[in-house]
Amino acid sequence: MIQAKQWEELIHLGIDLSTYKTLKKLLKKIALESIKLMNCQGASIYIKNGHQIDFMITQNTVLEKKLGNLEDIFKIFSLPISNESIAGYAALKKETLNIPDVYQIKKDNPYRFFNNIDVIYQYKTESMLTMPMLDTNQNLVGVLQFINRQNDENEIKSFSKGDEFIGKYLSSISAIAIKNASFDQLLKESYHETVYRLAVASEFRDLETSLHIQRIGEYSSLLWKKMGNSSEDAEIIKYASQMHDIGKIGIPDRILQKPGPLTADERKIMENHTLIGGKILENSNSSLIHLSQSVALSHHEKWDGTGYPNKLKGEEIPLIGRVVALTDVFDALSSKRVYKPAFGIDKVISIIKEERGKHFDPKILNSFLDTLPQILEIYEKYKE
Amino acid sequence: MIQAKQWEELIHLGIDLSTYKTLKKLLKKIALESIKLMNCQGASIYIKNGHQIDFMITQNTVLEKKLGNLEDIFKIFSLPISNESIAGYAALKKETLNIPDVYQIKKDNPYRFFNNIDVIYQYKTESMLTMPMLDTNQNLVGVLQFINRQNDENEIKSFSKGDEFIGKYLSSISAIAIKNASFDQLLKESYHETVYRLAVASEFRDLETSLHIQRIGEYSSLLWKKMGNSSEDAEIIKYASQMHDIGKIGIPDRILQKPGPLTADERKIMENHTLIGGKILENSNSSLIHLSQSVALSHHEKWDGTGYPNKLKGEEIPLIGRVVALTDVFDALSSKRVYKPAFGIDKVISIIKEERGKHFDPKILNSFLDTLPQILEIYEKYKE
Repeated sequence: MIQAKQWEELIHLGIDLSTYKTLKKLLKKIALESIKLMNCQGASIYIKNGHQIDFMITQNTVLEKKLGNLEDIFKIFSLPISNESIAGYAALKKETLNIPDVYQIKKDNPYRFFNNIDVIYQYKTESMLTMPMLDTNQNLVGVLQFINRQNDENEIKSFSKGDEFIGKYLSSISAIAIKNASFDQLLKESYHETVYRLAVASEFRDLETSLHIQRIGEYSSLLWKKMGNSSEDAEIIKYASQMHDIGKIGIPDRILQKPGPLTADERKIMENHTLIGGKILENSNSSLIHLSQSVALSHHEKWDGTGYPNKLKGEEIPLIGRVVALTDVFDALSSKRVYKPAFGIDKVISIIKEERGKHFDPKILNSFLDTLPQILEIYEKYKE
Repeated sequence: MIQAKQWEELIHLGIDLSTYKTLKKLLKKIALESIKLMNCQGASIYIKNGHQIDFMITQNTVLEKKLGNLEDIFKIFSLPISNESIAGYAALKKETLNIPDVYQIKKDNPYRFFNNIDVIYQYKTESMLTMPMLDTNQNLVGVLQFINRQNDENEIKSFSKGDEFIGKYLSSISAIAIKNASFDQLLKESYHETVYRLAVASEFRDLETSLHIQRIGEYSSLLWKKMGNSSEDAEIIKYASQMHDIGKIGIPDRILQKPGPLTADERKIMENHTLIGGKILENSNSSLIHLSQSVALSHHEKWDGTGYPNKLKGEEIPLIGRVVALTDVFDALSSKRVYKPAFGIDKVISIIKEERGKHFDPKILNSFLDTLPQILEIYEKYKE
């Protein structure tokens, strides 16, 4: 039943699917190949999203001839994972439904066929094969649906046992490919969660306003891009730089919230926030947390070696530490603090220029000055 | 070159691989199928682990006849991802190496064949096909290695272009299957990271000793299992219950660290730690963080409705809140505090029994008393 040519195509698809980086392209590939391999008119893919399945993509050779690119026409909609619809039923029961004619579904079946698309676009759905996509733990990933199987004379036929076998292969390799395509995104989000919750915790100590934290993130990531680094990194930089003062969680209130100047002993304790931040964030496998630790430890080091805690000098200081050293000082000077008013931008810039080669890396300072108009846009946008 | 039978086996394997739940079983399946599909004597799999690749499994029909189960003999070892070894080179360059005879590798090649296994077990490795396994972003997942291709007369032959094609399929579907098998584990670990870093941050405020936090985790998860819940849940319970006091991060030092009793106003502020904990942990998609929030919010509610912050009553209080209410009080009574000595276990138990149906859920109290010997083991193990 399955021809040699088909076997080969299936294998090629198995190799191919592992190389699709974005979910959207992957789904389109699966739908297009499904149509070819199953010799049917259409294929649709639903992806599980909480308690429902989202209709993500449909490809249909007949409708396409009539309507053009279907992606512009059919938008994402959702179905509950329940008995009512065909796809919802397949998702709920994790069962394959091989229906010869959707208009002949018996009344005593729990599910029914929704014919809106047929009505609107004057199409006739007839045979339909609907399969759940399950991951390695047999959890639902989504639903794959094939529409209108054709024979060599282009007559609509039922899907066969052989088609079910190919469908099983397609849904198996698609399930793991889809999960993979979402993997990096999910993992990234979960690490963002660590940073986010630490930031929320620190806000309850009145450490910094969330506006200060946001500005530092925006300034630092802008500067990072300006210096010619990739924009993917820039997103990590945004989050990591926001962690620079997380170690202040461990500084006693009497020092952290002292309105007047600190004594030498108190300053010593305050400077510990760099080391405490280092401890809170140490030993992570996540590049985001790792970079956060680096910035927590190094954002008070100075280019001329007079900073703390390790008196690092020049390029011994991690790049991100040098960037945040500058954006942190710029933000402190240009904002109101309990002990000082907000300085005007001209004054801030002239103070910062004074520190070229002393506090600040001259190259980073140049980039900063070059990008001043955008810096000031952020300043206005996230003003206290 | 590739026979119809092989195509079919490849497809079946593609379907099968998505159903292996544990990495170990998955790797064994890949290795065994590789031998069959490639008609070779052996297959080995290395998995990337930081800057090295770990040798995870080898299957070899000839060695097995001689030595029995190879899993008992060959243990995990690591190779650097570098030019030196064949697998290391394939991993570094992300290139396929098809070597007709490993003993004929030219001197000017960067890599060489390590023949220890051949020497020790009197085996002769000859032809070898080594392929990188890459994920959808072309990142290295591991290395798949095939050894001693045989013809129908069982003579050792070189691997062909057709073998390379099958190998490509095997390494593609294996890469995504392996990543999938590690997926849930990785995601779980990343959420543990959020809890862990929040706990480290709170320790810097002298909130609790880490021994207290550990005991609460162990007591609560033990009790959870005792009450007939699954041991998988019990692990989440362990971490979630450790978050019960995280909101204390937001309580001012003057109240948090006050040595004497609190005034009514101060107590009001202190009680806020439940709500602050709820805020720090709100709106998560992770079941671990979600449960942590629940325990932070509800561990000071009392069975009779006289607790805080929401005066919940009986089973209105989430089960985990009722569990931690008991383990937290048990731990406070049985440990030294700045304002009290550690009470003896008999006295602790009699105080707790007094609170049956008042502070504590009677059923949970029963389970606690039933499981006292194990509770006391934990008490001794994590003593201050």
